[in-house]
Amino acid sequence: MKTITYKQGMDLDTILKRNDDEREDIRNAVLEIIKGVKKEGNAALLYYTQALDHCVLTHLQVTEAEIDEAFAAVPAELLDIIREAAENIRDFHEKQLETTWTYTPQPGVILGQHITPIERVGLYVPGGKATYPSTVLMDAIPALVAGVKSLVMVTPPGRDGKINPTILAAAKIAGVHEIYKIGGAQAVAALAYGTETIKAVNKIVGPGNIYVATAKKEVFGKVDIDMIAGPSEVLIIADENANPVYAAADLLSQAEHDELAMPILVTTSAELGNQVIDEVYRQISEDLSRKEIAKKSVDDYGFIFIVKDLDEAFELSNQIAPEHLELLIEHPMDSLEKVKNAGAIFMGAYTPEPLGDYFAGPNHTLPTSGTAKFSSPLGVYDYLKKSSILSYDQAALQSVYPKIAAFARCEGLDAHAKAVERRFED
Amino acid sequence: MKTITYKQGMDLDTILKRNDDEREDIRNAVLEIIKGVKKEGNAALLYYTQALDHCVLTHLQVTEAEIDEAFAAVPAELLDIIREAAENIRDFHEKQLETTWTYTPQPGVILGQHITPIERVGLYVPGGKATYPSTVLMDAIPALVAGVKSLVMVTPPGRDGKINPTILAAAKIAGVHEIYKIGGAQAVAALAYGTETIKAVNKIVGPGNIYVATAKKEVFGKVDIDMIAGPSEVLIIADENANPVYAAADLLSQAEHDELAMPILVTTSAELGNQVIDEVYRQISEDLSRKEIAKKSVDDYGFIFIVKDLDEAFELSNQIAPEHLELLIEHPMDSLEKVKNAGAIFMGAYTPEPLGDYFAGPNHTLPTSGTAKFSSPLGVYDYLKKSSILSYDQAALQSVYPKIAAFARCEGLDAHAKAVERRFED
Repeated sequence: MKTITYKQGMDLDTILKRNDDEREDIRNAVLEIIKGVKKEGNAALLYYTQALDHCVLTHLQVTEAEIDEAFAAVPAELLDIIREAAENIRDFHEKQLETTWTYTPQPGVILGQHITPIERVGLYVPGGKATYPSTVLMDAIPALVAGVKSLVMVTPPGRDGKINPTILAAAKIAGVHEIYKIGGAQAVAALAYGTETIKAVNKIVGPGNIYVATAKKEVFGKVDIDMIAGPSEVLIIADENANPVYAAADLLSQAEHDELAMPILVTTSAELGNQVIDEVYRQISEDLSRKEIAKKSVDDYGFIFIVKDLDEAFELSNQIAPEHLELLIEHPMDSLEKVKNAGAIFMGAYTPEPLGDYFAGPNHTLPTSGTAKFSSPLGVYDYLKKSSILSYDQAALQSVYPKIAAFARCEGLDAHAKAVERRFED
Repeated sequence: MKTITYKQGMDLDTILKRNDDEREDIRNAVLEIIKGVKKEGNAALLYYTQALDHCVLTHLQVTEAEIDEAFAAVPAELLDIIREAAENIRDFHEKQLETTWTYTPQPGVILGQHITPIERVGLYVPGGKATYPSTVLMDAIPALVAGVKSLVMVTPPGRDGKINPTILAAAKIAGVHEIYKIGGAQAVAALAYGTETIKAVNKIVGPGNIYVATAKKEVFGKVDIDMIAGPSEVLIIADENANPVYAAADLLSQAEHDELAMPILVTTSAELGNQVIDEVYRQISEDLSRKEIAKKSVDDYGFIFIVKDLDEAFELSNQIAPEHLELLIEHPMDSLEKVKNAGAIFMGAYTPEPLGDYFAGPNHTLPTSGTAKFSSPLGVYDYLKKSSILSYDQAALQSVYPKIAAFARCEGLDAHAKAVERRFED
């Protein structure tokens, strides 16, 4: 871990090695796959699944029997935990529901906003080693709370043509409507454009590797997508009274995700900074199952920033705009207004990040790599859309139409002016 | 205009000539420009403005003196209309404001959602013949209602280095903070990456030509963008009692925008359909100032769909997902729940589309080309973001931490499990 004394105006992007270099070779491969799926449909899906996932599929859609079999294979205790987490996630996201509203700003006028769910949504779930049933819950439940009618999950099969049973169990508990055994750019293409078997969706959400992310960016416009996820990050703001054991453990829970994951401590106490570094390496030397990944993340992307006071800590944190922000300080809730950019805010010593990853209820799909400057946790709002409502009666329009006509003519739009004027010609 | 009898399952994308072909040549030109601006900053902006806008700029930022001069050049009457429209737009959008909330699902637990504005936003305003001060109001005011601290407008200069005065006046009335005389892909690149003079923004909104749209898609991820706008469209649902003169006038107000604009009538009455066609061509033959554009739009992209009843009309409309939906039917508000996909809904004979374009208050920046299936009018929500709030006390975490640890271990994330367990080791 690198210790840095913070100064205003530092080039944080360079220090944190954040960059946005495009990989043109990957884009070209992805475009080829998208073209293939648009043209050949299911045949292309089977071809790419064989070529890239080394699996010869007999059918694309996961059957009810396969789901039941998976469900039976998951320990009952774990199913109960998944169910309880699902309930917490549903409770929180129900608070995000929005409803249609109208109002009457003046007699004869009604204005408002009509709220409707997106009809059909695709949910990408990564396969391979990183199989996260928690992500199935986090991405699916808000969609179902929003009222999405068709929620379609795609996830790449193993070489044996099977899907991780816990993923299928979580999908069943969440209430996913259809599941297909496809992954990669080909799955994104199938969701965006449809095939003989898979009906095209209106929006694609969920994390994935660089091929999936590139494909999502390519189909954006044809369908909506959620924010493209980068490596995960946590930023802990800690004062001199923070517990270095907790801080180190929380940094490591981030670090074990990915060699590119970024664990950052921002502290007013250089002494605590040193304690946390010692503790991080002590905990790594214990029996962490993913210690190689965690060590590489900590070595390459771990940072301790020393700041002069908490105001400076929040200033720095707002510039970094972390995915996860932990406040290991006294009375953290009092500092809420100082937080400008963060995916999720974990308050105090007993709110470690894994609590939010699995269980508390708020979403764990959060803006990464500084995108918290302009985006939000995945939520019910991502699955809803709005239509404006306008209603004027004759008298209301009559009292303003010459102004509308004048405004339209100043823009050179004669037919716009005439459309209101013709209402009052006779 | 082409008259079509609607049948369920028709291939509407083909009939409406909707396609999403990419122009690889345009993308390559745009990538070159973005690379230039990233590398050369202001020098690249001056170079491209000379090469593409045929203007040798002496300074990038519009001065206070230039704004005052423009303001003085706009007729007082028009300024008053712009001010009144701005007030209506502000009133409507204030209804969209969201505030931070928290709740306590159980003792010792606080969950919630913290709302903050995006700090710095770039607003693209097209130049050339289509100068729309109304778009300045529509894009800027929701940002300022949301609390955006730095709202930065860019718009290409004329060959004389000047900006249309009405555009500058609208920007002043709306309250835009900075204005730069740049356009095209180079302006999008400057907003996304910054230059010596222009500080990078967090989000870019506003319409533009294919170069602007392509550049927005390329910088998406580095910054957020609003939906990429396609040609404008109106769909009018009319019953047999609708006034064909109004319907035709409203179709033409759409058609005059662009040769690719799409005016669609959906009616239960073949007779009304014929009357509207006659009336459209009669009105074109009158003195519309943009009659060539309107005629080309109507000829190539004008459609009359005959449906058997209003339910079928709404079914068709929901599939097309029009930017503007007009309901020229009895008691239109009673049909609100039938509308699933539409940008804005105009209710009844005295709510023509231009009322919404200029004056009523709801936004005129709306999802085009069927994107109303997954996106919304531009609104205050586009300039706000959310951070989840989580707070557990010791007892609350203690009661659930073994479940969190078990869930984490089922995902193979040992350090996640340890992060909660270490809190209760001693």
